[in-house]
This record gives sequence, C-alpha cells and structure tokens, in this order.
Amino acid sequence: MELYIAEFVGTMILVLLGDGVVAGVLLRRSKAENAGWIVITFGWGMAVAIAVYTVGRISGAHINPAVTLGLASVGAHDWALVPGYWIAQMLGAFTGAVLVFLHYLPHWRETEDPDLKLAVFSTGPAIRNPVTNFVAEVIGTAMLLFGVLGISANATEIETAADVDLSVVFATGIAPLLVGLLVLVIGLSLGGPTGYAINPARDLGPRIAHAILPIPGKGGSDWGYSWIPVVAPLVGGVIGAVLFELLIGS
Amino acid sequence: MELYIAEFVGTMILVLLGDGVVAGVLLRRSKAENAGWIVITFGWGMAVAIAVYTVGRISGAHINPAVTLGLASVGAHDWALVPGYWIAQMLGAFTGAVLVFLHYLPHWRETEDPDLKLAVFSTGPAIRNPVTNFVAEVIGTAMLLFGVLGISANATEIETAADVDLSVVFATGIAPLLVGLLVLVIGLSLGGPTGYAINPARDLGPRIAHAILPIPGKGGSDWGYSWIPVVAPLVGGVIGAVLFELLIGS
Amino acid sequence: MELYIAEFVGTMILVLLGDGVVAGVLLRRSKAENAGWIVITFGWGMAVAIAVYTVGRISGAHINPAVTLGLASVGAHDWALVPGYWIAQMLGAFTGAVLVFLHYLPHWRETEDPDLKLAVFSTGPAIRNPVTNFVAEVIGTAMLLFGVLGISANATEIETAADVDLSVVFATGIAPLLVGLLVLVIGLSLGGPTGYAINPARDLGPRIAHAILPIPGKGGSDWGYSWIPVVAPLVGGVIGAVLFELLIGS
Amino acid sequence: MELYIAEFVGTMILVLLGDGVVAGVLLRRSKAENAGWIVITFGWGMAVAIAVYTVGRISGAHINPAVTLGLASVGAHDWALVPGYWIAQMLGAFTGAVLVFLHYLPHWRETEDPDLKLAVFSTGPAIRNPVTNFVAEVIGTAMLLFGVLGISANATEIETAADVDLSVVFATGIAPLLVGLLVLVIGLSLGGPTGYAINPARDLGPRIAHAILPIPGKGGSDWGYSWIPVVAPLVGGVIGAVLFELLIGS
Repeated sequence: MELYIAEFVGTMILVLLGDGVVAGVLLRRSKAENAGWIVITFGWGMAVAIAVYTVGRISGAHINPAVTLGLASVGAHDWALVPGYWIAQMLGAFTGAVLVFLHYLPHWRETEDPDLKLAVFSTGPAIRNPVTNFVAEVIGTAMLLFGVLGISANATEIETAADVDLSVVFATGIAPLLVGLLVLVIGLSLGGPTGYAINPARDLGPRIAHAILPIPGKGGSDWGYSWIPVVAPLVGGVIGAVLFELLIGS
Repeated sequence: MELYIAEFVGTMILVLLGDGVVAGVLLRRSKAENAGWIVITFGWGMAVAIAVYTVGRISGAHINPAVTLGLASVGAHDWALVPGYWIAQMLGAFTGAVLVFLHYLPHWRETEDPDLKLAVFSTGPAIRNPVTNFVAEVIGTAMLLFGVLGISANATEIETAADVDLSVVFATGIAPLLVGLLVLVIGLSLGGPTGYAINPARDLGPRIAHAILPIPGKGGSDWGYSWIPVVAPLVGGVIGAVLFELLIGS
Repeated sequence: MELYIAEFVGTMILVLLGDGVVAGVLLRRSKAENAGWIVITFGWGMAVAIAVYTVGRISGAHINPAVTLGLASVGAHDWALVPGYWIAQMLGAFTGAVLVFLHYLPHWRETEDPDLKLAVFSTGPAIRNPVTNFVAEVIGTAMLLFGVLGISANATEIETAADVDLSVVFATGIAPLLVGLLVLVIGLSLGGPTGYAINPARDLGPRIAHAILPIPGKGGSDWGYSWIPVVAPLVGGVIGAVLFELLIGS
Repeated sequence: MELYIAEFVGTMILVLLGDGVVAGVLLRRSKAENAGWIVITFGWGMAVAIAVYTVGRISGAHINPAVTLGLASVGAHDWALVPGYWIAQMLGAFTGAVLVFLHYLPHWRETEDPDLKLAVFSTGPAIRNPVTNFVAEVIGTAMLLFGVLGISANATEIETAADVDLSVVFATGIAPLLVGLLVLVIGLSLGGPTGYAINPARDLGPRIAHAILPIPGKGGSDWGYSWIPVVAPLVGGVIGAVLFELLIGS
C-alpha cells in the first residue's frame, strides 16, 4: 500500500507542477503569461525531479505507466505491481490536475480560447496526423526509458563500487535530478510535434479532470486524440527498454 | 545566538538576491530590464540555494517562518526556537530589502509606475481575490514543505547508509541546490496567480522597508493585501508538513 | 564491439536530442518554434550529458571524433581504437539525424526556407569566411578538450583520494553533467560565429542524412562549407589536448 | 610557478567564455544576437564553473584579484602569493579578451555601435553615477565572497566528516558548480546597475585589450569609469570576507 501511496503522491506532484507551469504560461493575466518554451520545459523537468526526490526512495517513483511497463518488460519491475502502480498514477495525475484548477481558479474565466484551457491539462498535436503523432510519442518515450535505464545502470555501478544499497543511491543522490534533466531535454528537443505526453497518466488523468471540472467557457476534451498519448508511450516505453537491454545492457 | 545570526544572514541573502532580481527586471534602465519570468524564477531559486549553502550547516537555513512553523508542527524543530527564528528572519528580510534599495539607488527615480516599485519588495495578486489568492499561497507553501521534507528524508537515508552526520549531508551536499530548484519550480509552475510569496518574512519584511524607505515616487504599500502572504504560507506550511508525515513519513 | 556499439548509441542520442532541439526551434508550427538561443544551447548541453550518462561507463562516451583524436594525441586513448570509434560515431550521428527527420515528419513541408531545413542537420557560418570560420571552430573545440581534460583530472583526484575506479567516478558521478554544462557554455559563448559544430560526426553524419533523405523542398547540403566543421574540430581537439598537457598536466 | 600558470589559464577561460557570451549577444549577425540576459548570465556563471573545474585543484582558482585579496585578508590565502596571483589573473584576462576578438573577427565590422564593442570587453554603468556604481560593485563583490566562503566552509565540513583532503573536495566535487551558480545569481539579481564586474582583472584586462587591439570602428575605452570596477570589487571583497568571518565564521 505504501508503494501505491508513493506513486499517487509522486504523480500528483508531477502534474501539479507540470500542468501548473502550462497554466502559468497559457492562462490570461498570470504573472508567467507568455513566458515561453524554456519556462514550460524547465517546469516539467524540475517537476519530475522534485517528485522523484519526494517518493523515489519508497516506490522508485515511476510516476508514469510507460516507465512501469517498460521496466516490467525487461524484468526490472514486478509484474504483479503493475496494475496497482497504474491505478495510483492515474489517480495522482487526476488529483494534481484538480489542484491546478483550484490554484489558477480566477484565471479560467479571463482566458477566452478553450483550446488553451485544454492545453493546460492534456497534450495536443502541433500538426494533427495520427501516424506521425504516434511515432513522435514513441520516439520520445523510448528516449525516456533509454535515459532512465542508463542513469539507473550508473547507480548500479556506484552501488557495486561503494558497496551501498541501490535504492539509496538512486533515490537520494543526483539520479532524480538527472531524470529531471532528461525530461527537460526531451521536452526541449522532442516536444515540438506533440507537446511530449510521454506518459499516459500525465495525459489521460488531467483530460478526465478537464471533462469533469466546472471550467468556465471550456470546450471539448478532444477524445479523438486521447488514445495516442496513452498507447504510444506504452509502446515506446517497451521499445526503449528492450532496445536498451539489447544494445547496452544494465 | 549563533542560530539566530545565521537565520538573519540567510534571509538577508535570500531577499538581497530575490528582491534584487525583481528590481533588475522591473526597474527602468536596468541591464536586466524586461528579462522575463525565467530570470525572476532562476534568481529566486538560486537565491535560496546560496542562502542555504551559506548558513545551512549552522541553523538549518529555514530562512522562512512557514518552514520553521511547518517543521516544528511535525516535531522536526524545537518550538522554543520558533520565536527567535521568526524575529531573525524578519530582520534579515528587512535588511536585505534595504540593500536592494541601495543597490538600485538611481533606478527608482527613472521608474514611473509606483506599482512596479512595490512589486520589487513584496508580492501582489495577478487577479485580486482574497479567497483564491489565499488558496494559491497555501498550495504553493504546502508544496514547498512537501519538497523540503522529501529532500530531508533522502538526506536521512544517506546518513544511515553512509553513517555520517545528517547536518553535514543536508547542508554541504546537493540538498541546498535541490531546495533552490524546488523554489525554482514552485515559481515557474505556481507563481502565476500571486507571485509566490510562500514566505511571510520575504513579503512582510520588505513591505515594511518599502513603507519606511525614501523611495522616490513610491505609492502605498498595499497593506490591505499584506496579511495574505503572511497567514496563508503559515497555514500552507503546517498543512504540507502534516500531510507529508501522514502520506509519506520521514 | 561493445565499445563501438556504445559510441554508436551515444552519438545517436546526441544528434537525436541536439538536432532535435534545432528542429523544434526552426521548423514551422513546432511548439518550440522561435524559442531562442537559450533553448538550443540547453538542448545540446543536456543532449551531451544524457548521452554520456547512457554509455559513458562502457566506452567513455567520446561521441565526437575530435575528442577521440585529442585524447589519443596525449596518450589518453588507444590509437588502435580510433578508426572504430570514428566509424561508430559517424553511423550514430547519421542514425540520429534520420530519427529527427522522422520525429518532425509533417513539419518539413510546412517550412518554406530550405536553409532552415539544412540548419537542423548541420552547422553553417553566420558570416561566411573560411579562415575566420576555421579559427572559430578550432577555438571552440580546443576549449572543449581543455574542459573535458580538466573534468577528467578532477575525477582522477577523487579516484586517488577515495580509492575507487576512475571509470566509475567519471561515468556515474557528476562528471557527465559537467561535460554537458561545458558544451552549454561553449554554445552560449562561442557558438555565435559558426553554430559550434566542434564535432565532425555531429556535422558530417547529419549532412549526409540531409543529402539522402526525401526532405520536402530541401535545398543543397552546402558541401563547400562541409570540410570546415570536420577538419577544424580535429585540429582544435589536438591543440586543446596538447596545450592542456603542457600548461596544466593531468 | 604552477600556481600562477593555473591562475593565468583559469582567468583566460573565464574571459574567453564570459566576454564571449557578451560578444555573441551584442555583435551583429552572431547566431546568439539579442539572446537576452538569461544567456549572458548563464554564460558567465558556467564560465566560472568550467574555469574552476579546470584549474581549481592546483591554485584554488581565484581567477579574480578581489577573491585573492578577500581570502588573504581573513588568513585564507598567503599574502606572499597575492602579487603573483594578481599578475597572472590580469595576463589571463587580457589573453582571453584577445581570443574573443579573434573568435568573433568578422563581426566587429558588422556592428556599428562602438559602445556595444566596448561592452563586449568591459562593464559600464546603466546610469552613470560614481557613488552608486561604486556601491553596487561593492555589494556584488561582498556577496561573491560571502558565497565563496560559505561554499568553502561546507567543503571543510565534508572534509572533516569524511576525512579527505579539502583541496580534493573543493576542486573536484560540486563546489565549482556552486560557485558558478553563485555568479549566475549575482548576475541575475545584482547585475542590473553596472553589469557586475565584481572582478578587477575581468574588467581591466579586457579594457586594455580593447584599447590595443585593431577593432574596426571602435570608440574610446571609457577610462574615466575604469577605476570603479577595479577598486570597488577589491573593497567589496575585503568587506565580504571580513563580515563573513565576523557573522558566520568558517
């Protein structure tokens, strides 16, 4: 149960800070309005880092069903824990989105464009094309798993050399910051085509919140696109994890 | 006494560098004029990091009454030290604001808008609404305590694994930088509605300085709003600390 | 063979994330469009860091023929491995460029200017002048080797003091992040005249990809300039490595 | 002699990368043109970090006469070494400026404004006022010494706790990065009034280079202002170091 609470809290923090930075940049009369791509990508990157520092030593801080699936697919996570992790991540992401709604409460009415309001919660394509959007999310998430496994493999090396417990090194040292910087660079470099969901919970949880919450002047939740940022990251996560094991090994 | 001097110095550095970056961006003819939200948030984030590195090994570098109260409320700080910490933090913040006034001395006369001059010293709401502004400061400060306690819990794990003293690890390792990055992301993601005081001393100390100092062409100090960035962070700090203990534990 | 696969993968990651950030900023209708120099330089810097964390503990993560040559020229790399490293780096850079082409697939048609499309793949001069462009690439790459050797020398000191294996320290600690920050500052400070190739594989591999790939509305691949970002970094790498040994020593 | 060469090289790197980033942002047709304050401040900050990583384990990497004087004034540096350090720092700064001139060679002619050309080399006031400019440089440099001594004191704590040599910890661990982030935040927060010389060598060495070098269309070297960024940092360095010892101690 402790593991699931940690995943819930970690994903809640991720979405509070991640969707929060998008709200800050997109919503009208926010002090961060129009602050640009460097602000959005740094916000998401550091959101990941802080979430991992907060709960990583308990659950590993996957905070992303694609990471959970990718790790399980190469034997680095217990399959029996996957359903619980996924449910906790979805609930955490939904809760984080509700907090963002509350945090920016008076700004929803000030913002006319319903597309901007949806963009605070969930990703959307720059150019709508199911095939290329799917490919972009696969590449982005494969890169995420590659990086996560590379950083973990380094932690294993430290563990061996210094004779300490892996979970301590991974959760408490520099590794969570590195994972945050990994998400920063994925955003900077690969976020252009789809806004880089690379995480089914991060996209679907807030999309459900968008559909349910009484957001003034909101439009539709773009359910036609919603399957891509769910399915493609899961596919990309497995591809990335398997390729890493084949090419690099742990 | 050493503890209180450390809190005084740490909060002074925080406000010198924090209010300083706002002065640089808002005041006319500054070389940093209009440099944007990324500059303001990085300035505050690194201000925290440097302040904690400078005095953290002595007093823990709360440099924030909401952190002091939050830690005390979960037994992580001695209640008897709280009043002295608060006084030292307020005096340090006031002194830091005076230094910012001196540092940017010729720029006050060049800046016509009195609201910008107040904004250098203290926060104000993007959309004035006591209820939502209060909620935003509570959420921001609760997130701060969550992150600080998470980072501290990691330091405890390192302490146990490597058998060293906690205060050494927390103050001298990567933890102060992480707290700075935590404040960076809180600013990026949650700063939009109120300018993220999340610290009563950081807001009230400089507001008093604004009221007292002979700033050319200044307006009022907005005392009607001033209670929110004092009370809400204290409430948010306790909520964040208690929720962390309930959900995550140390 | 493991070494060459690591160099292939590392350079592929470097170019996927490095050329990727240029695509994000330059291509029309990308969400990162016009995000500016800070985004491009952070993207390249963190691309280096992530690539080194992923494969550094295996091959040292040169991911750059100029680094390989520079290290070999001062006895810090086996000459017999140089040809294999170079081939792997070239193949990796080419593959990374193909992935960028796929990742941004619908955006090529939206972008009219053929010069922007080439700029995603390879560098070009701000002011075309073979002599000064050559000098700029020499200075930039010499600075790269200076920094890499300085960071490595620090790792050696840690190794001696703490009695651990060098490759562990260099690949798993903070060193890869520092190399990424080194490339960040080279970009920020020395990238203005030529776009800082400072890496023959990073420039030539993607240039070949540009020539081969069916990019809609592409122009020429500027082969007249292409020798400078190949030859000058090799010269600069040797100069930097030799000067470091003379002035600083390891 | 080794010490002086290290200071020469470190200060040369500092100015190559520091003046380099100003050249990139200010000179016409540079790829970094108009990239803004965040680019300039990150460039200088990481310039410091890389310089300290490269030579810190040899000479301590003061790379700044005000740091050398401040440390000597509190007994943290040998007075007999001060003159040699100062000379090496000046020669290094001059050499770095010459390299910047060469690196951006074709861009000087493209840039019409002679003030921008001088600004690449040396600082100038936003609002010219000897008293307030002097005060701003004193405050900035005092903050620099405060931070440097705080970071060093943390290194001493690690040394004691882990029983390793201080010079190893300071030069090879995270400390040089922290000093770079300290200079980043001083630039962000305190750079507005004078462009933050906070280093006599960084300002005077390049100013001499500006006067000597055959820069097309250059104007005067503003010798009337030149004493402030030399004298004020020396004063501020001593004030900062002495105040730190009084208030915090090592």
